Amino acid sequence: MGGSVLGKAESFPLASEKLLQSELQPWQDIAKERQQYRDASISRVEPRVPDVDTRFLPLNVLDTARSMLTHRETDITEKCSIDLINLMASGNLTAVEVTNAFLRRAGVAQNLVNCITEVLPERALNRAKYLDEYYQKHKKPIGPFHGLPISVKEHIAMKGLTFDAAFCSKAGDIAPDDNALIKILFDAGAIFYARTTEPQSLMHIETDSNLYGTTVNPFNRNLTCGGSSGGEGALIGIRGSSLGIGSDIGGSIRVPSANNGLYGFKPTQKRIPKGLMAGAGSSEGIEGTLGPMSTTLEPLSLFMSTILASNPWETDPSILPIPWRQEPSFPVDTTAGKPRKMKIGVMRWDGVIMPHPPITRGINEVVAKLEAFPDQFEIVEWNQEAADTILACDTVTALWFADGGQRLYRELEKSGEPILPLTEWIVTLPSVPKPPGLIIQDLWKLKSDVTKIQTTYAAKWLAAGIDVLLAPAAPGVAPRLQTAKYTSYTSMWNVVEYPVAVFPVSKVDDRDLGAWNYTPVGKQDEDHAAEWDANDFMGAPIGLQLVARRFQDEKVLEALTIIKNTIGLPFVDLAPRSPDSPRL
Amino acid sequence: MGGSVLGKAESFPLASEKLLQSELQPWQDIAKERQQYRDASISRVEPRVPDVDTRFLPLNVLDTARSMLTHRETDITEKCSIDLINLMASGNLTAVEVTNAFLRRAGVAQNLVNCITEVLPERALNRAKYLDEYYQKHKKPIGPFHGLPISVKEHIAMKGLTFDAAFCSKAGDIAPDDNALIKILFDAGAIFYARTTEPQSLMHIETDSNLYGTTVNPFNRNLTCGGSSGGEGALIGIRGSSLGIGSDIGGSIRVPSANNGLYGFKPTQKRIPKGLMAGAGSSEGIEGTLGPMSTTLEPLSLFMSTILASNPWETDPSILPIPWRQEPSFPVDTTAGKPRKMKIGVMRWDGVIMPHPPITRGINEVVAKLEAFPDQFEIVEWNQEAADTILACDTVTALWFADGGQRLYRELEKSGEPILPLTEWIVTLPSVPKPPGLIIQDLWKLKSDVTKIQTTYAAKWLAAGIDVLLAPAAPGVAPRLQTAKYTSYTSMWNVVEYPVAVFPVSKVDDRDLGAWNYTPVGKQDEDHAAEWDANDFMGAPIGLQLVARRFQDEKVLEALTIIKNTIGLPFVDLAPRSPDSPRL
Repeated sequence: MGGSVLGKAESFPLASEKLLQSELQPWQDIAKERQQYRDASISRVEPRVPDVDTRFLPLNVLDTARSMLTHRETDITEKCSIDLINLMASGNLTAVEVTNAFLRRAGVAQNLVNCITEVLPERALNRAKYLDEYYQKHKKPIGPFHGLPISVKEHIAMKGLTFDAAFCSKAGDIAPDDNALIKILFDAGAIFYARTTEPQSLMHIETDSNLYGTTVNPFNRNLTCGGSSGGEGALIGIRGSSLGIGSDIGGSIRVPSANNGLYGFKPTQKRIPKGLMAGAGSSEGIEGTLGPMSTTLEPLSLFMSTILASNPWETDPSILPIPWRQEPSFPVDTTAGKPRKMKIGVMRWDGVIMPHPPITRGINEVVAKLEAFPDQFEIVEWNQEAADTILACDTVTALWFADGGQRLYRELEKSGEPILPLTEWIVTLPSVPKPPGLIIQDLWKLKSDVTKIQTTYAAKWLAAGIDVLLAPAAPGVAPRLQTAKYTSYTSMWNVVEYPVAVFPVSKVDDRDLGAWNYTPVGKQDEDHAAEWDANDFMGAPIGLQLVARRFQDEKVLEALTIIKNTIGLPFVDLAPRSPDSPRL
Repeated sequence: MGGSVLGKAESFPLASEKLLQSELQPWQDIAKERQQYRDASISRVEPRVPDVDTRFLPLNVLDTARSMLTHRETDITEKCSIDLINLMASGNLTAVEVTNAFLRRAGVAQNLVNCITEVLPERALNRAKYLDEYYQKHKKPIGPFHGLPISVKEHIAMKGLTFDAAFCSKAGDIAPDDNALIKILFDAGAIFYARTTEPQSLMHIETDSNLYGTTVNPFNRNLTCGGSSGGEGALIGIRGSSLGIGSDIGGSIRVPSANNGLYGFKPTQKRIPKGLMAGAGSSEGIEGTLGPMSTTLEPLSLFMSTILASNPWETDPSILPIPWRQEPSFPVDTTAGKPRKMKIGVMRWDGVIMPHPPITRGINEVVAKLEAFPDQFEIVEWNQEAADTILACDTVTALWFADGGQRLYRELEKSGEPILPLTEWIVTLPSVPKPPGLIIQDLWKLKSDVTKIQTTYAAKWLAAGIDVLLAPAAPGVAPRLQTAKYTSYTSMWNVVEYPVAVFPVSKVDDRDLGAWNYTPVGKQDEDHAAEWDANDFMGAPIGLQLVARRFQDEKVLEALTIIKNTIGLPFVDLAPRSPDSPRL
């Protein structure tokens, strides 16, 4: 290896196991090499992806992306994953054409928002050709994801490729095997063609690293795409992918999904495999989970059912043997011809940080539309106690860094790369233990707090008698770069392990321009309120969360489907075309 | 409270929260008071339980117990729990008569084997009267356990009663609420009438404490009843109970079940609630579970299905929402009229400690009987690697005492009671961390070992393609008092979290008298082999384990039912009556 970051699969043990900085290249050289590697991968996409001078880009680059593609490429890449699968399964599209279109749009996306660590034209097109030949020969798809290009967050292992979690020290690590989800989705017919950016340490809700710089939001390049699955968020937001795989231990699927107008799903922990991943995490007692991010709702269920149909618990003891259940939670009453009535709780705020006006407007709009169907939806208020939010927040941040951040610091020391401000911010929160981290008695206290939180939520949910809970996904739309900090709205659900779907509702527009008369309740609330200026967030998507109880993954997606079919989502076109942009 | 151990429910906070020995009575006085309290409870049973001079007891006291009861009391208490429930549900027995019979036999059991901490004549008979009146009024049982007396291991909380886990310091602690299982089974019609002994710290596989002394085995008073649910084991073994609740974090249900010729079940962890319990455990990453111990097999499934029918996961976030599944794992082939063929693995030893001859004979007898039905059972060998056993053993012992035993030591210091030899033995094993216990990095290493063990077993099980695994429950029958140490046969299943049923097969008899030509493979094996002398174990029950994969609780009980119905279990009468003992 000799310090090169472009190793081969057989290079195990990992380069990052080297402890001395002197054995690695300077981190700046590592980053340069990774970026050249990325650019070289995009240069192999045909026809060649046009260059972009980022100095002359508009803030919203969605139409810019369209303008750099053919009408047919735009047409293909803006279709729902399910439509693409059906078109390929009926012989009306080839996997090769679909893959080429997404490779092209991913390349364009990289030039506009910097969301890619590499594209995989050779392996993706080889796979696509194989699938097309399979289809020609057998006249049927190979599996439920036949031919669909799927993008993947970089730290999720793909055999023979890097998996670095955005650490310079790990940039030479080559995955010795595929992640379990990669294997399952590959067998189901998926094509992996693009890998996406992450923040240093994976613990920001933005996406910036010393390896790749900053990924920005395609709806407004001054805003963050969110994180940590921010490369996925930006890529899918700009339609360089229709379906991607992210990971979430505090909001890392849901925040970028909300920030980019997407559907995202954080399953109940232990429901689907985590498998091989890179990272320097030191979480203890709080589990992360992988999950899908998508332009449309339907693929979330297909993703889950396909993974669980492989019986992953047979080989992975961390997974619970619960198949994807087909029995409806809201069965259709044959007399009324409608699903059974749904009781929906509404959490308007978390008691600590008041959402900015567009989020509250989003909640209000959804509630108003639901209330127009009183025979189908019953709405009740969920009063979130500030103390419950604070306990959840303090507990989860402490457990994220059970070693006081030692693994993280060590990884930075290996390459000498500087700690980024958002990394430093989170790892030095007052609730995070100091190195060397927790002793067993501290851990027990935190774990008993987790149990307390879980028990409180369970009792409250049971008393409310609700099916699902509607809540903000964050206290605002995508924040300005380097200002995204507050994870309480998402991380509380990691503590109680409830499944959560994020969905797009609207976007910031003139309705949000009026004065906001709000008196903050505390310092964080005050700081956050001060960030609000409608002019800076125009066009940014408004996303919300829908939550169900632990292991009710099927139920929350079914509920969201009913809601969407009844009230329509989103309420506005998030990315309208300019008159001269390519048309479907 | 003033140091009295006979507090009331409203005495929360707990007496054991006092940190100074000076605030407590001398531990000898506490023990004396507890024993007087116990004796007083038995003295209130009517007709009065006869006194016993233990100097003149035979080693096997099963028939002695019968001789101290009426024919009718013997008849009732030796019935299967299911038969008792059916007789009460059909109006052919009253709950009062059944409860009185069990109160009497529990009192007799105390005098013979010292297995009781208290009997509850008043609350049990009040409950029985209520149930009888309910039945008279409604002409139907109140629930699936209508009228059945159930015994309970002492540390499982019952509101208003002590829960001390056999610590003198905790003898004044009064439970502020019922344990979750107590509530569920009460609602199902159960009657709680007897509470049973445990060892100091709950971490022996014998049952001795400074509070109550030593509980002995009713089959042979020189042998241990096992532990830590040893009071239950001895009480049910002598038929002073037909069904009891134990707890198991390393074998504490299964060892006493095997030692006393019983059926016992350790469910998959997180399947049923643990709820409120006493203890000074410091386990981390290894969970315990409650479970049933029974004279017959059928009640184990009724116990599980009744608990899960209450949807315990709605309020207890530690419980997984998996109902008791009714679909058979071995459906009956309608053509053949037989269940589908069962593939059974056989673990003859753990690679570390060779079982004594009667255990190997038990395995051989079961295998031979199964092989007589080649169309129903396929037998394959499971070769347990010594390294896997040792890793599981070292990991589980380290995790049991994650704080290096600090909680345990502190509890002993509070009262000044001496540490007992088996407590000291286990807490000072080389694999147990020294106080102050694990730091987070140690814990991660141990947890990664747990994952490694779980993954190894999963792969091995999948490769073997077996339905269930037959294995010893321990390397011998009930050991001589103060010699029971080896938990590897049971504790490995706590590490991988597999459900395990224990069942009686045979007993030590003349067939085990021959010379045992065995060359030990290591020091523990040599020490254990040296303990064997058939003459000392005559009449001791031989019990085995049947194991299924995680969450296949229903499957393992169904498999055991099919096995029992096909080959008959046990193969000999474990407790034959002398000609002059009461007859059914």
